[in-house]
Amino acid sequence: MNLITFEADDLIAPNTLVLRDRRLQHLLGVHKAQVGDSLKVGELGGLMGHGELIALTSDEATLRICLDTPPPAKRDVILVLALPRPKMLKRILQMVVTLGVSELVLINSYRVEKSFWQSPWLSEAAMAEQLRLGLEQAGDTVAPRVSLRPRFKPFVEDDLPALMQGRDGWVAHPVLRQAGATGQPGDITTAPTQRLAPSAAPTLLAIGPEGGFIAYEVEKLQAAGLQCCDLGPRILRVETAVAVALGQLLP
Amino acid sequence: MNLITFEADDLIAPNTLVLRDRRLQHLLGVHKAQVGDSLKVGELGGLMGHGELIALTSDEATLRICLDTPPPAKRDVILVLALPRPKMLKRILQMVVTLGVSELVLINSYRVEKSFWQSPWLSEAAMAEQLRLGLEQAGDTVAPRVSLRPRFKPFVEDDLPALMQGRDGWVAHPVLRQAGATGQPGDITTAPTQRLAPSAAPTLLAIGPEGGFIAYEVEKLQAAGLQCCDLGPRILRVETAVAVALGQLLP
Repeated sequence: MNLITFEADDLIAPNTLVLRDRRLQHLLGVHKAQVGDSLKVGELGGLMGHGELIALTSDEATLRICLDTPPPAKRDVILVLALPRPKMLKRILQMVVTLGVSELVLINSYRVEKSFWQSPWLSEAAMAEQLRLGLEQAGDTVAPRVSLRPRFKPFVEDDLPALMQGRDGWVAHPVLRQAGATGQPGDITTAPTQRLAPSAAPTLLAIGPEGGFIAYEVEKLQAAGLQCCDLGPRILRVETAVAVALGQLLP
Repeated sequence: MNLITFEADDLIAPNTLVLRDRRLQHLLGVHKAQVGDSLKVGELGGLMGHGELIALTSDEATLRICLDTPPPAKRDVILVLALPRPKMLKRILQMVVTLGVSELVLINSYRVEKSFWQSPWLSEAAMAEQLRLGLEQAGDTVAPRVSLRPRFKPFVEDDLPALMQGRDGWVAHPVLRQAGATGQPGDITTAPTQRLAPSAAPTLLAIGPEGGFIAYEVEKLQAAGLQCCDLGPRILRVETAVAVALGQLLP
């Protein structure tokens, strides 16, 4: 927890914050905080600053806070991600926050197991909790928007064109190398793929499931204006692919 | 398991491979493999190719193999990493394989908890198992070299100069932003840091623990010729930082 996040409910006076839950346990157990310490705090959706710990018991911590710093600006990046398995989704939600994307769209794909869409980790409350842990890791107060698109074709035909307005679009899909590796005649193109370059331009980045998008899906994404890009000769786990691609795009 | 790895012991004839352990369970449970299927196989440390499944029972799978492809070339990158907590170490060992680094050096740092060095996950056998899982994920047969340096000063004074011979050296440490964020007068420099650029040159990359290297450690790394680089305005988890930095360096 590099930043203690709070909501209006946690304030007992305009500049006085009281913590009683896991944040208190973290202060006691990990930070080994003591009265007089100055800690980074931030209001969810609002400003960040410092809090001076003015009282501490095993039941509650009281901080006098001063908020003076806006959260870091989001990157104008929409990440379109085939729904990962629930265990990985938790880590990816936190990671996506630390990488500063403005919007995450979780979509279906042929190789996404249907059961993933039934996961309790997809509830609004469960995702909000993971996003908040990400904010506390990142030192940020504004979570990316997250939306679910459990049907691929309606997403790509009806929603994607609007999302792509004014954006560069990329799909991480190693066309040439995959063709070489599998030797399947159905592989869709021989156009060389490109490495992502640093860019501050508005961008949409699509990353497939374990095993990749199928050819039909890549064709539909290409038809919507996305270009293929390549993350190297080895097969990455989804969470590694997300960090590599967003790292390469970082201006 | 994108690649089935094996050793000479697994062969019952020069081109006949028999699997009985977790690899068999994976073939049955995840791949739902059937006689006649062609599967990617690779000999640890050697060639990769395909195996045709010629017999399958609940006790063993028999494959006729043909090895004809060298593993992907390693990147000439040495990753020097402050020892992460054991749970994260497992994931990072696998990830480092998928990112193709040639050598991993796990070092001590002020903010590495001493107990981490006692972890059973640091045994040679435990690390070899994680590296092998990484090879099976990546589609590679050659694991990076891994070494442990539990004392920072002897490593940086005695070993690092030799490792740095002929290499670009980087330490991920956001000097300016960290100075701005903490306001500590002891922060070490006001030189602007740089973003890592794609490079095929031999490189050494150092990444600190959660909380970062301390100023003394950064000074010692700088004295050995490493330059500071910056991974963005948010605080990344170690595993995310590793993927972002190696993604940025990817030529």
